[in-house]
Amino acid sequence: MKTIFSSPSDAEDAYYDAIDEGDLEKMMSVWANSEDVACLLPMRPMVYGRRAIQETWTQLLTPEYRVDISVNHLRWIEQGNVAIHLLEEVVTPVDSNQPQPPIYASNVYCRNGAGWQLLLHLNSPAPPPMPAGVLPPLPGN
Amino acid sequence: MKTIFSSPSDAEDAYYDAIDEGDLEKMMSVWANSEDVACLLPMRPMVYGRRAIQETWTQLLTPEYRVDISVNHLRWIEQGNVAIHLLEEVVTPVDSNQPQPPIYASNVYCRNGAGWQLLLHLNSPAPPPMPAGVLPPLPGN
Repeated sequence: MKTIFSSPSDAEDAYYDAIDEGDLEKMMSVWANSEDVACLLPMRPMVYGRRAIQETWTQLLTPEYRVDISVNHLRWIEQGNVAIHLLEEVVTPVDSNQPQPPIYASNVYCRNGAGWQLLLHLNSPAPPPMPAGVLPPLPGN
Repeated sequence: MKTIFSSPSDAEDAYYDAIDEGDLEKMMSVWANSEDVACLLPMRPMVYGRRAIQETWTQLLTPEYRVDISVNHLRWIEQGNVAIHLLEEVVTPVDSNQPQPPIYASNVYCRNGAGWQLLLHLNSPAPPPMPAGVLPPLPGN
């Protein structure tokens, strides 16, 4: 039975619960049932389409890769049937117990007849700290 | 006079033309006139809201930071009034003439009474090449 998420934050809670619990079925319940979805995880190529995303998470939601993941909410953007959530993720591999530096995550949800569904998950590194008064570098440098 | 973009690709063309031409007014014509916008450029903190985005581009669209930027289209995702464009950017600083490695870019547009407008621009590094048969690393590592 397909889970229906009545809000984007319900879908997002399920996304992060799925990672914490290593639950592939819960993870895939969050994604739109469509080829028009994409996922970019750190140090991996971007993958498109539900099937490729399921293959990626099948590899990752295993005991070998088990992590604790916590999030800091930065900003919700909502307009009509689209919701964008910007946040920071802090990932701690269970075997090392050493939290990684926070990284940005951006999740884009759309509402349709099947409730709120995830279309896009993107990770980006957060910038290194800068000394005060120094202009940040050029994009692409 | 506010520019109205009748398609998300018209808005996107203006975004990249603005960077090539160092044209702040054109750049700001692409962004929604809202506090609910966000921009993440490489090695910079994410900024939220039209005012902060305008300040960022005011710094960058100057002769000192002039770049040529070219893009490779990866995927369009469209659903109702939202369009997501996934692409690679190749940035070449005009003074060095050395193209940087490609980086991912994701642009999220929304359609409302003012046409198609940019809500979100995010850059993420592309992964380093991996030897064949090697499992990619854990998210966060």
